[in-house]
Amino acid sequence: MPSGEDDLIARYFRPVATAPGALGLIDDAAVLQAEGVDIVVTTDAIVEGVHFLKDDPPETIAYKALAVNLSDLAAKGARPYAYLLALTLPNEPPAPWLESFTSGLRALQEEAGIMLVGGDTTRTPGPLSLTITVLGLVPQGTSVPRRGANASDRLYVTGTIGDSYLGLRLLQQPDLANAWALSKDDVAFLVRRYRKPEPRSALTTVIRNCAESAIDVSDGLVGDIEKLCHVSHVNAEIELDLVPLSAPGRKAVSKGRDILEAMIVAGDDYEIAAAVPASRSAKFEAEAAKAGVDASAIGVIKSGEGEVTVLDRDGRSITLARKGFSHF
Amino acid sequence: MPSGEDDLIARYFRPVATAPGALGLIDDAAVLQAEGVDIVVTTDAIVEGVHFLKDDPPETIAYKALAVNLSDLAAKGARPYAYLLALTLPNEPPAPWLESFTSGLRALQEEAGIMLVGGDTTRTPGPLSLTITVLGLVPQGTSVPRRGANASDRLYVTGTIGDSYLGLRLLQQPDLANAWALSKDDVAFLVRRYRKPEPRSALTTVIRNCAESAIDVSDGLVGDIEKLCHVSHVNAEIELDLVPLSAPGRKAVSKGRDILEAMIVAGDDYEIAAAVPASRSAKFEAEAAKAGVDASAIGVIKSGEGEVTVLDRDGRSITLARKGFSHF
Repeated sequence: MPSGEDDLIARYFRPVATAPGALGLIDDAAVLQAEGVDIVVTTDAIVEGVHFLKDDPPETIAYKALAVNLSDLAAKGARPYAYLLALTLPNEPPAPWLESFTSGLRALQEEAGIMLVGGDTTRTPGPLSLTITVLGLVPQGTSVPRRGANASDRLYVTGTIGDSYLGLRLLQQPDLANAWALSKDDVAFLVRRYRKPEPRSALTTVIRNCAESAIDVSDGLVGDIEKLCHVSHVNAEIELDLVPLSAPGRKAVSKGRDILEAMIVAGDDYEIAAAVPASRSAKFEAEAAKAGVDASAIGVIKSGEGEVTVLDRDGRSITLARKGFSHF
Repeated sequence: MPSGEDDLIARYFRPVATAPGALGLIDDAAVLQAEGVDIVVTTDAIVEGVHFLKDDPPETIAYKALAVNLSDLAAKGARPYAYLLALTLPNEPPAPWLESFTSGLRALQEEAGIMLVGGDTTRTPGPLSLTITVLGLVPQGTSVPRRGANASDRLYVTGTIGDSYLGLRLLQQPDLANAWALSKDDVAFLVRRYRKPEPRSALTTVIRNCAESAIDVSDGLVGDIEKLCHVSHVNAEIELDLVPLSAPGRKAVSKGRDILEAMIVAGDDYEIAAAVPASRSAKFEAEAAKAGVDASAIGVIKSGEGEVTVLDRDGRSITLARKGFSHF
């Protein structure tokens, strides 16, 4: 079932986007042909008070804006190439703010091997917002579509899920650290996961070699897998106990099962969910390990028309209040 | 002399943008190589209350957001190829708003031969804003740089200057129509020039064939030509009486010379200023006329280091309070 946001895009913007490279706007990225190479291009905006907090350090705001876009590239199996930054600022930022901000860009662009090639700066009467557009490259015809999943594929997710949700909750309500019995280091870890999500650029080649379909988990694990299923015309079954959690995440979950259910629909993870044919799953796991990224099997793809079922340890379907985050 | 905005970019973002294709961020567009073709990419944001008014029709808001980006492509001599739209909305827009909005995109994308290939929709606690990123194509190595002007080049500008400024003034203060002795049709023309600037995509090939340097006039004619001169290490002389005006523009100017001086620094024109070698100026004029776009010679490039002089009809230099618009 598409969200309000998907519906808005489908109803109003899909009819405007008829080019083959637009992929019907069902993907987070477009694929444009050039000779010998396909250019994967995607854009994401982040807004103060929506995607980051007013008090977040400028360095992490910049880092996050670029990271969420690199995450989309990773899901397409595309190597980061170049990016543009449109910055709308409520006032002229002081030098230390800008120095911190650009240090965040610099750190991640060196890590990811991407280059800033242009942008725009604008004044706004509203909150700070940043729109980044990234261009990535893949050998012609090899980008990973969102709509490629098939029944019997294994469903994987990278890293750990829900840390970012916990980090945000802790920033909003610091005494939750006590309720969840978290150490200072645990809190710092979870807050860092919210502020500086790690795009899985290291997995680009592995995803391209092994996955039939992939999506970055930005609006909630269940909801994003539902999007993948919806356009692939398949169902998915996720085993809740297989969803990978960090050690601090496990501590919080031990205080209440409802916390886990919130974590799998909360979003802001910027991990990659991928459907991998069973024949390639051993290779996928081995190559991911070699790239230094954990990839956990969390379920399977089944035939169907876009339903996602989350199963408890007894194989019973869990009813979730909502499946993901939608802006509308 | 760079503005606060240029200074902000030069000081903080240029050091982050070291790739050759970034052109040192002195241009409105980056040039990325692919085989046989260069990809020109540029991004511009427009914000309610800054670049358009709250009461502007959604159709013209969308049109303008795309037009200002196509204008940057035209200045590079690049053929429009594809674009992405990041839309940050203060609330879920009603269907008629979205229908009007997408009709504006559709009209201009058909005219320009560009395709929507992706984007992002986000909620904001602030005003409506849109960031569009466009990709354009040129044969390899043929994009027109901003920094290519040489002494003795003729300086041209397309269309007419200042209409958009007058249109905005009329929207803010409708009784100026009487003060300026404008008809209803005059007012409608000037308001349309503010809301729906016409990108000079028709001139793409002509600019590529004839111009050594070009810039789109978005922040004021004098200030933008100063930017072109600054990076080309030349001076420019503009003859005020040669600056092309529309018939309604001439009516307003007849009410006061100060109006003309405001029009040449006000911005939002989205015309193209180009430096053309004297040997190619006849060809430039003929090809522009064939493409159906007026191109007026307004002055000359001289040796120097980035100064722009505006001369009155007696050849005396005019002192301007400011030269262009800067957000900071």
